[in-house]
Amino acid sequence: MSDLAPVLARLEAGHDRTLAELTAFARIPSVSTDPARAADVRAAAAWVAARLEAAGPLTVRTLPTPGAPVVYAEWLGAPGARTVLIYGHYDVQPEDPLEQWTSPPFEPAVRAGRLYARGVSDDKGPMLIPLVVAEAFFAERGRLPVNVKFLIEGEEEIGSRHLEAFLREHRELLRADAVLSADGAMWRADEPSLAVASRGLAALELTLTGPAKDLHSGRHGGSVANPLHALARLVASLHGPDGRVAVRGFYDRVRELPAAERAEIAALPFDEGRYLAQVGAILPVGEAGYSTLERQWTRPTLEVNGMWGGYQGPGSKTVVPSQAHAKITCRLVPDQDPGEIARLVAEHLEGHVPPGVRLAVVTGHGAPAARTSRDHPVLQAAQAALEETFGVRPLIVRMGGTLPVAELFQRLLGLETVYFSFSTGDEDFHAPNEFFRLERLHQGLAAWARLWERLGR
Amino acid sequence: MSDLAPVLARLEAGHDRTLAELTAFARIPSVSTDPARAADVRAAAAWVAARLEAAGPLTVRTLPTPGAPVVYAEWLGAPGARTVLIYGHYDVQPEDPLEQWTSPPFEPAVRAGRLYARGVSDDKGPMLIPLVVAEAFFAERGRLPVNVKFLIEGEEEIGSRHLEAFLREHRELLRADAVLSADGAMWRADEPSLAVASRGLAALELTLTGPAKDLHSGRHGGSVANPLHALARLVASLHGPDGRVAVRGFYDRVRELPAAERAEIAALPFDEGRYLAQVGAILPVGEAGYSTLERQWTRPTLEVNGMWGGYQGPGSKTVVPSQAHAKITCRLVPDQDPGEIARLVAEHLEGHVPPGVRLAVVTGHGAPAARTSRDHPVLQAAQAALEETFGVRPLIVRMGGTLPVAELFQRLLGLETVYFSFSTGDEDFHAPNEFFRLERLHQGLAAWARLWERLGR
Repeated sequence: MSDLAPVLARLEAGHDRTLAELTAFARIPSVSTDPARAADVRAAAAWVAARLEAAGPLTVRTLPTPGAPVVYAEWLGAPGARTVLIYGHYDVQPEDPLEQWTSPPFEPAVRAGRLYARGVSDDKGPMLIPLVVAEAFFAERGRLPVNVKFLIEGEEEIGSRHLEAFLREHRELLRADAVLSADGAMWRADEPSLAVASRGLAALELTLTGPAKDLHSGRHGGSVANPLHALARLVASLHGPDGRVAVRGFYDRVRELPAAERAEIAALPFDEGRYLAQVGAILPVGEAGYSTLERQWTRPTLEVNGMWGGYQGPGSKTVVPSQAHAKITCRLVPDQDPGEIARLVAEHLEGHVPPGVRLAVVTGHGAPAARTSRDHPVLQAAQAALEETFGVRPLIVRMGGTLPVAELFQRLLGLETVYFSFSTGDEDFHAPNEFFRLERLHQGLAAWARLWERLGR
Repeated sequence: MSDLAPVLARLEAGHDRTLAELTAFARIPSVSTDPARAADVRAAAAWVAARLEAAGPLTVRTLPTPGAPVVYAEWLGAPGARTVLIYGHYDVQPEDPLEQWTSPPFEPAVRAGRLYARGVSDDKGPMLIPLVVAEAFFAERGRLPVNVKFLIEGEEEIGSRHLEAFLREHRELLRADAVLSADGAMWRADEPSLAVASRGLAALELTLTGPAKDLHSGRHGGSVANPLHALARLVASLHGPDGRVAVRGFYDRVRELPAAERAEIAALPFDEGRYLAQVGAILPVGEAGYSTLERQWTRPTLEVNGMWGGYQGPGSKTVVPSQAHAKITCRLVPDQDPGEIARLVAEHLEGHVPPGVRLAVVTGHGAPAARTSRDHPVLQAAQAALEETFGVRPLIVRMGGTLPVAELFQRLLGLETVYFSFSTGDEDFHAPNEFFRLERLHQGLAAWARLWERLGR
């Protein structure tokens, strides 16, 4: 076995350059949900392809999809060794509300050991790490300890909508022993962790139409249906007083968590008061009978992500608006089917439409929940690499968020996914002032090098 | 008594010029609720002052207020004759949603006998009529049949917020026998009408704050309060299943309508099906136990005019937003006090805040309901002038909307208000594609001339 020290030293010496690269990458506003940013999304793909080319003797290809391209790269020079499929994404969430950013979202700024910019934590920072690690191995040894295939997509923030067809088409190309995901976020800033489960997703958008046009609320108020009142009633009907989702059938396939797993979660170091203070909430609010961590990791939810209608400007405008809108996402647990849940929610909405308004529902993207086996050798190597880097054994945790790709890799390629991301859950991805801890960039570079080295043994 | 025919002929001959003037006036985007349009509001005041100067030997003054100025003009050359105070406003409602306008809101366009632009019906068209009529009398006779004082304000669409202090300050200047309001809208396009009552107004805006910042709904969803869910519950709590406002004390001062007045309203020619088709509503919706006209004219209401929070853009953004907002206005009937109603609604909101969110309420402008005496001589002259112009006796109706100035004129100047407006209630003021019927411009010019002539006898 070769000595890893020169590789680690090279990574350490290259930190300033790595930070400069991440800064350049984060300047590209690759917001995949916004059609006006399609050129920026393509520019981010081109940046990733160029960075892979520069890393060493990788074969790099930019593979088209009907949406944003997948950047693929491989090095298969270690016959007999394991092959890992490295997953990440170069697209980012929208930046609004823009006025809440301290520095502009696409002008990365370092403050107090953190790099602030949209996408630095999710997923541009974590995604860049294995590229830089590959370069260091090639520079020191001319080779990698394991065979690697990079699959960097550009539609993760919009439900990886073309990835399923892509995986079907490229099944042979993507053969591997496991997926290593650079996306996924560690649980805490102060302890390393490995996630073994993530929740699924079902998305819907609804529109209620009352009068055919906006009406003067003086002349017409009180005599025709106001779609904002109807929306309030409809949204209020989605939860019961116990915090449970009131949609018929929503919990039918949900299995109660085994007592042992509840105990494992209860044993984790978690200070609820500190958590609430961090997010600025005054109370825990959720489904009765479950702890905060159980609610976040093991219970399905229904959240309204946006709701709007009528006049929002300064002063007042006395209208009964024609339309009201809401965007909804559900987080799912194992055995819940995204299509079935979307249908049940739509049926609930249809069954609860107040008189005088018409309902239109559009179903968005979906993904089932995913789990990773505790005894998977790549998971165990990841545990060891983290312990070596942080000096403590990583916590075994779950994710409240959704990484639909894990389910696709399992179903279409037969591969389990090990999350090996160096972002942290509190880094405000999907919110203003997203940041990435620079310390995690250092730790991530070392940990990826150690993980590959262990996998190559 | 002089012959009115030459005045009427002159008004008839000047129609094209009057339309061109209205078009120029309507090009000024004098949106009083938008601080960015303050210069446009001032430009509209200057336009009105110049038009009054051009009309003849009126004394014109632009009188400051802490907000938009009042344009005042007087001609008092008919000693012994009545003096009427003519009210109108040069400010307009905001134009959004802009994308629903067929032609741009501040580029007036004539289509099928209607002039389309923001403010042409409310109140620039109706307000221009008495100025043009004054000019015709001066041109034909060198004098008017009655003494007139014009009071044209620029803050009607934001609750005439400086008019009360203005009326107190200029009480002597504004002495008159009655107010003739060029604002107020006729009930129907096919029959003349005179309104003898209008509803009052109480306005509030509320903000609910959950977490201190927008949170990822995957990681945090289901464990902290979502202010959109809380807003839905709070708004839904404002009405009962019978359509009544569920705020304690809301109806305490509301007197039941006398049977005779209910019968008068029931006898009016009103086709509910046709009305619903006009506004594109599928059902009448409102307080149980009252007809549509009773709901619009004689019952108090609470309407949400705008509601928003979270992500509204294309695609999805999975957030639990930090804040949710709503704008509310109540329409009031006689004896309800705007301040008391705003307080009762605020108390209801405070008493119904769901756990985990904080409420902030801001009270906006208010105005009590107003009524006009049926036997007022100016009302009777207005009835006669309308009958002479339209060939049928005008209907006696009420207004669902609010003209807070009528209450101010009554309380501060001791004057009753007669609504003599030639806009029509269906002309989409406060909505996209506001229009003014050109036929009503003709009819209004003749009717104002006849009214002044009668008042001068």
